[in-house]
Amino acid sequence: MADSASAEREQGRRFMPKFDDKGLLSAVVTDSESGEVLMVAFMDQAALDATRRTGKAHFHSRSRGKLWMKGESSGHVLEVTEILVDCDQDALVLKARPAGPTCHTGARSCFYRLLNGDELERVEG
Amino acid sequence: MADSASAEREQGRRFMPKFDDKGLLSAVVTDSESGEVLMVAFMDQAALDATRRTGKAHFHSRSRGKLWMKGESSGHVLEVTEILVDCDQDALVLKARPAGPTCHTGARSCFYRLLNGDELERVEG
Repeated sequence: MADSASAEREQGRRFMPKFDDKGLLSAVVTDSESGEVLMVAFMDQAALDATRRTGKAHFHSRSRGKLWMKGESSGHVLEVTEILVDCDQDALVLKARPAGPTCHTGARSCFYRLLNGDELERVEG
Repeated sequence: MADSASAEREQGRRFMPKFDDKGLLSAVVTDSESGEVLMVAFMDQAALDATRRTGKAHFHSRSRGKLWMKGESSGHVLEVTEILVDCDQDALVLKARPAGPTCHTGARSCFYRLLNGDELERVEG
């Protein structure tokens, strides 16, 4: 039974998102044009439903314990163009068109620093 | 104090990885040539240390509760060429050269299905 459920999850056409013991899965947002990774966050069922319903990326904030829409205060929403699902359905890639800088620091991507030896080096505006 | 620690974490040159209450952070592996997202997993301090020491991607398996090196059984290791760090230092992007298919299913990437309406559609080998 476990094996057939696992095979269906990996090979099937049925969307069976697998939330962890906190009700979360990982979501990676990439720029739909450049492919660059813009941010990584978590989604619960409500965030996933809101994202699918509205086409705008929603997440679950672990620190605030609530649903939020990326851009709800900044206006820098992420228009989701495609959702990719991984083998065991516990991680998603959201391809998106960003309406502005994705990072709250003003950087295009949250990944604006490179680990160089033991130091971080800025690689992007 | 919290604000200055937060500012240092976001803007500083010091690598201060932020592990969650389970001692984990998110790691996204991308192909260093194509930029494609290959897999998403979690790292604890030991996995991060092993990755930095060996240059090969290591993770923490939540289901097995232990350190593993990607490719330890398949030989399909991920040679890490760069590590990018996000604003709050709780997520990493590992740019890597894959020695073979990254997914245990044999697919190049674990993200081989697209969510199309309510169904999953295979988009890759």
